[in-house]
Amino acid sequence: MDNFEFYSPTRFVFGRGAEEKTGALVRKYGGTKALLHYGGGSVKANGVYDKVVASLEAAGVAYVPLGGVQPNPRSGLVREGIALCRREKIDFVLAVGGGSVIDSAKAIAFGTLYDGDFADFYFGKDVKRPTPVPAALPIGTVLTIAAAGSEGSGNSIITLEPDMLKRGATGDALRPAFSILNPEFTFTLPAYQTACGATDMFAHVVERYFTPTRDVAVSDELCEGLMRTIVAESRKVMSAPRDYAARANLMWAGSLAHNNVCGAGRAQDWASHGIEHELSALYGCAHGAGLAVVMPAWMDYVKDVDIPRFARFAAKVFGVPEGEPAAMAAEGIRHYRAWLRDLGMPLTFAELGAKKEDIPALVAKLGLNGNTVGTFKPLAEADVTRILESC
Amino acid sequence: MDNFEFYSPTRFVFGRGAEEKTGALVRKYGGTKALLHYGGGSVKANGVYDKVVASLEAAGVAYVPLGGVQPNPRSGLVREGIALCRREKIDFVLAVGGGSVIDSAKAIAFGTLYDGDFADFYFGKDVKRPTPVPAALPIGTVLTIAAAGSEGSGNSIITLEPDMLKRGATGDALRPAFSILNPEFTFTLPAYQTACGATDMFAHVVERYFTPTRDVAVSDELCEGLMRTIVAESRKVMSAPRDYAARANLMWAGSLAHNNVCGAGRAQDWASHGIEHELSALYGCAHGAGLAVVMPAWMDYVKDVDIPRFARFAAKVFGVPEGEPAAMAAEGIRHYRAWLRDLGMPLTFAELGAKKEDIPALVAKLGLNGNTVGTFKPLAEADVTRILESC
Repeated sequence: MDNFEFYSPTRFVFGRGAEEKTGALVRKYGGTKALLHYGGGSVKANGVYDKVVASLEAAGVAYVPLGGVQPNPRSGLVREGIALCRREKIDFVLAVGGGSVIDSAKAIAFGTLYDGDFADFYFGKDVKRPTPVPAALPIGTVLTIAAAGSEGSGNSIITLEPDMLKRGATGDALRPAFSILNPEFTFTLPAYQTACGATDMFAHVVERYFTPTRDVAVSDELCEGLMRTIVAESRKVMSAPRDYAARANLMWAGSLAHNNVCGAGRAQDWASHGIEHELSALYGCAHGAGLAVVMPAWMDYVKDVDIPRFARFAAKVFGVPEGEPAAMAAEGIRHYRAWLRDLGMPLTFAELGAKKEDIPALVAKLGLNGNTVGTFKPLAEADVTRILESC
Repeated sequence: MDNFEFYSPTRFVFGRGAEEKTGALVRKYGGTKALLHYGGGSVKANGVYDKVVASLEAAGVAYVPLGGVQPNPRSGLVREGIALCRREKIDFVLAVGGGSVIDSAKAIAFGTLYDGDFADFYFGKDVKRPTPVPAALPIGTVLTIAAAGSEGSGNSIITLEPDMLKRGATGDALRPAFSILNPEFTFTLPAYQTACGATDMFAHVVERYFTPTRDVAVSDELCEGLMRTIVAESRKVMSAPRDYAARANLMWAGSLAHNNVCGAGRAQDWASHGIEHELSALYGCAHGAGLAVVMPAWMDYVKDVDIPRFARFAAKVFGVPEGEPAAMAAEGIRHYRAWLRDLGMPLTFAELGAKKEDIPALVAKLGLNGNTVGTFKPLAEADVTRILESC
């Protein structure tokens, strides 16, 4: 086990009616005037927005709305939010939505307090130790989709315009003070979004599970347990979207998949995420959909580095019977693809709407500059090219 | 799944040499003059105390030592610590030791800021919703035994003199700001203490695993994964006390067993802990040893409430083959006792040094006053009596 720090200070408030505590929680964490940040309007259509506003008003918290966050949130709206927060003397940033809204909120919360350009702290995946952001306004979230895990993470991913480079920032200051998770809010999600979310949270565990670090029995168990849960509960919600228990288990699994309890003491990979980010930045596809294409292809490419680990993945996560390890490894990846297919995910470049001729540009945008990405098998540009070609 | 809040803000700093960060961490959390609280002197003998002092001095943190915490820490030393903190204008409480030292430190950290008697906030297990302590000095820990989980919990258990009633307090203010976990510090523990620690952490998961709450797939998986880890890694450290990987996995499992990630969304039981606390208060036995006697007896007594859950416990934790559920349930408990026996734990009143004639007094001290304890099967005084008689 590697040395590590584990720090997950977010207060998770989970369950039916949890949003009624929003206003009191903003107050608890020092907020008197909140930026109310949201996306394309679905939170207005389904009533979540009004519930949050009612709670803010009941607690005497003033608010300034800023909607319009797109999937793969962009720097332009972040800059607009920063200007608005400064002008309105906002002291709390409240995100109502999914990972894109939360990531945008984090960038605004940090950028408001930072004298320079917020993008200074957004780096490519080849940067092993990005400088953490120094400070941010307190952040709260009301989650509406179980997926990104941003509600419990210290990360934010923004697409930097005009070059459409998807880049990440990190830092304890980006961890939400609280996150409200009401599984009922996910009942009415389109099936495709639910599926993309399950794909994404599973991938967050995979990035931690396939590691060169040895002797990590505790977190191996946590990873495998979460992956089994995500597969089982996602199958339930696809056939019964209003199954509260399944929605609840999937939602909580999504937070645990990314608050790093699964990654404590382990070198983590993140090559698939790095590669995918350029796909969704270029094509505007859902992050989960991009991962469904990239991650199994990554597995095929890297599995020979540690066949026993892939055999264990097959056995523990998908119940593949014991047998010849290389065959088990292949069978595990086949099961993974079959689950993604059942969810309705794309599995190839063609299904995603990506084009082979864009591969050189995608690889270049990763910005490796002669470095590698990933730890399970460090990948140079040529490796990334071969993975993308296999898609 | 029940509604819940999950809040575990402690910064865990884990690994070889982690104690070198002690002074800087005290500073980070506002400390300038720390109470350095410890136990019977083993931390002086094994060098941990000197390492911590060196780190405090390097960071320019003043400190006032207060040793002498006994297992099952007592109110007398807590009162002494509170007076010392007030007199010396201490602004940080640093515990160097195991659960007893940490629990004593928490009581001091709270009592120093509280105008009344600190014991006002220490309640019996029959109190379903004890009033959380309002505020406390910031607390840090340097852990020297993997067991109690107090390094990541918001609880403190103190034996109130002169009646020797073991009572608990709770509250977010009692959660340590940071906890330093260096598995090497546990290399030289006596085997019996290592075993008591493993017994205790396993019991923390059991108290959460056996629940009347349904549809808790995520935390069921986490519970089972941690229990498997604790059984496997404890067997390794008993035969190889300096096995870093096994010590590390056991230590981290102990923290996760009690920071409540396993209990999110579940009604928890805690009857066995409540019953055991009166045993260790009366006889001065190790908490883990008392649990090894009480908890399997509790299982025998309550298992018919939910045989399928006990059968699942048997299968998932101890690998009992599928079969007739009641037989599987009994076999699971047998495996549990066999593991405890292998650890060298007592399993009966006689082995513990407890006496049958004390049972009425033990039951009375639980202070049920006509209420019940536990949720899996709520136990009245007559039930507790029968469980203790079966020991």
